Amino acid sequence: MVKIAILSTGDEVLSGQIADTNAAWIADFLLGQGFQPVLHLAVGDDLERIVAALELARQNADAVLATGGLGPTEDDLTTAAVCRFAGLGAVLNKRALSMMQERFRLIGREMSPSNRKQALLPEGAGLLENPIGTAAGYHLQVRGVYYFFMPGVPREMTLMMEQQVLPVLSLLRRERMVFRQRVFRTFGLTESGLGEILSAVPLPEGVKLGYRAVFPEIQVKLVARAVSAELAEQALEQVAPRFREKVGPFIYSEDGRSLPAVVGDLLRARKRKLAVAESCTGGLIAKMITDLPGSSDYFERGHVTYSNAAKIELLGVAPELIERHGAVSSEVARAMAEGARVKAGVDVVLAVTGIAGPAGGSPEKPVGTVHIAIADADGTVEQKFLFPRPERELVRELAAYAALDLLRRRLEQ
Amino acid sequence: MVKIAILSTGDEVLSGQIADTNAAWIADFLLGQGFQPVLHLAVGDDLERIVAALELARQNADAVLATGGLGPTEDDLTTAAVCRFAGLGAVLNKRALSMMQERFRLIGREMSPSNRKQALLPEGAGLLENPIGTAAGYHLQVRGVYYFFMPGVPREMTLMMEQQVLPVLSLLRRERMVFRQRVFRTFGLTESGLGEILSAVPLPEGVKLGYRAVFPEIQVKLVARAVSAELAEQALEQVAPRFREKVGPFIYSEDGRSLPAVVGDLLRARKRKLAVAESCTGGLIAKMITDLPGSSDYFERGHVTYSNAAKIELLGVAPELIERHGAVSSEVARAMAEGARVKAGVDVVLAVTGIAGPAGGSPEKPVGTVHIAIADADGTVEQKFLFPRPERELVRELAAYAALDLLRRRLEQ
Repeated sequence: MVKIAILSTGDEVLSGQIADTNAAWIADFLLGQGFQPVLHLAVGDDLERIVAALELARQNADAVLATGGLGPTEDDLTTAAVCRFAGLGAVLNKRALSMMQERFRLIGREMSPSNRKQALLPEGAGLLENPIGTAAGYHLQVRGVYYFFMPGVPREMTLMMEQQVLPVLSLLRRERMVFRQRVFRTFGLTESGLGEILSAVPLPEGVKLGYRAVFPEIQVKLVARAVSAELAEQALEQVAPRFREKVGPFIYSEDGRSLPAVVGDLLRARKRKLAVAESCTGGLIAKMITDLPGSSDYFERGHVTYSNAAKIELLGVAPELIERHGAVSSEVARAMAEGARVKAGVDVVLAVTGIAGPAGGSPEKPVGTVHIAIADADGTVEQKFLFPRPERELVRELAAYAALDLLRRRLEQ
Repeated sequence: MVKIAILSTGDEVLSGQIADTNAAWIADFLLGQGFQPVLHLAVGDDLERIVAALELARQNADAVLATGGLGPTEDDLTTAAVCRFAGLGAVLNKRALSMMQERFRLIGREMSPSNRKQALLPEGAGLLENPIGTAAGYHLQVRGVYYFFMPGVPREMTLMMEQQVLPVLSLLRRERMVFRQRVFRTFGLTESGLGEILSAVPLPEGVKLGYRAVFPEIQVKLVARAVSAELAEQALEQVAPRFREKVGPFIYSEDGRSLPAVVGDLLRARKRKLAVAESCTGGLIAKMITDLPGSSDYFERGHVTYSNAAKIELLGVAPELIERHGAVSSEVARAMAEGARVKAGVDVVLAVTGIAGPAGGSPEKPVGTVHIAIADADGTVEQKFLFPRPERELVRELAAYAALDLLRRRLEQ
């Protein structure tokens, strides 16, 4: 396997002002393409230290992926460090210059003289174009190791990685293998629970299975390695139906969409208007739904009925119901959903009431108790949850996910 | 200055499953204490590579702060690597063992034989106790460089850093200096705007000023270095009033509290009940308010009036007003706040209507246009904002912050 070192330069990473998410993204991306990250390095905007890091990386890897330090200011020292490290001069790359000029025209700003520095690349370097920013990247070989230099802005770096670095980097692999992956996004089973079930599925030659916990979901990742894209896809297609058979209801997407996006697409396709009535989640569900552009197509309104008065006045919940069963109860969850449906005149309502803590728990209704109800034209369903970790933030996030997932399952019926 | 290398071990960081937030936290913490981070390194759970990284770190720093690899499983190789690197054997540390046994008793679980490995420390190492987990840390000197090994679980690591590592590490400083810091959390000015104003304030000897952008706020950080805590605090007290004089209204806290917490404390102190009426922020403000435990003391209800019908029915906004001025207008923002105040019977209402994009903008009302209104017993105030970056997520977050900040200023009057 081709060994990869990842080098981040910049005082912001070194000083801890920002966590090194670029390194994490590059490592994850390249692992999925069959490369082996072996080392991450981060240094500040310091010429000597960048030179030393370039050498360190060289001793440990076949290829070095570096980000940062390609801007126009005096702090941007990457190219100077590369030139010193490789014993090369910097020369003007005309293509880089004209792309940068074009970029400035596009955003309607004057190019300052200092930007010209960004088009000076080490002699012999290959240009990596930056279609969405001014900092060009480049690649070159130094003493048998291949170096790639990219801007530190995440969206510029990821686009450059996907479109330009990967094809060049793939040339370094001795075998001409192609990698394809599929990610099953799941909610409702634990990583070990999924592992126990899915380990029973035999994997074809060249297919690897991995798990990734991104709270509160678990992503199941299949990576197929084959001599052609077609064969890699075929291998994935062989496994995917078995996974669906075993844990289908827990998989909410296979195409990268988030849970709110899946729910939104279902609502749009079925031409249903949604309202939500939230108590313990306090607006989180409405926020997740409206994070998406175009959510006004299906999202009509949200109620954050934090007080009992709000539940009674806005949703028409009977005061006796709250008195008899408590605000956190199956009965009140149902009444919230049904009441909001009538009042809002929508097709479907998602209602949540629960105890997020830290206060408010009791032996009968401990922190983490949540009731979720859905009212639609077919009636009302309700489910009780007891989330095991009693931290407020976790309870709220789990409750919001569980509610959206219940709605997804209802809409998929 | 004492030079610091930070080493993270573990496949999860190397493979990019998680970003290296431990390294960022350690760097930021130690910078605030007058140390100089010079290098971050991350390697996987691989004996040879950990040994190599320990040597690399040694060549670059006076002290090495390492996290991860102290657990009970076969993947946990840090101590084995340290022993090989330093040419030492591992010996049972009785204090570590008894603390671990005590820990298992506390959580009511059986200690497995594999945990015993966690009490085996390199000969001569000093124990760093872990009061909230099973993995003990330790420190030792190897060939003139001081090493600290800590668990990778963030809250265990941070507690160990603050309580145990810092006192030992401070012995390495030649001068016996004490560091104290104060963070002014601000909203509404840019980093360069703040810089221009605050650079005019003379700083006493030993006081340094720094900025940190944590979107959408800017934190202004003063670090004072003196021979005693008292003198360091005095130096800070000398500068703080000048900062308040210059940018006071933009500072929302000096004690670490978040903006929603400051607003919540003001509402609680003034015994005011709040309702919110959100259009473009779609529940985000209610979510931020209810993130805090105890918010039911002052938060009564929230309306997410995404559709015009919801604005009319729930808030009593006159349809003619929407027709004449549009849903995104000063008039509708005022009507939302005033209507909700009457309907909810609360003291104060915060209302937001705007265009978060990407669709819905026009030449007169481009994406990023947001109207915020507050209605209370003294009347109604309204303010129009045009946020410059037309990305949906940024507009929503800026609008939520601007709304809470406007409410803070109103409550502070």
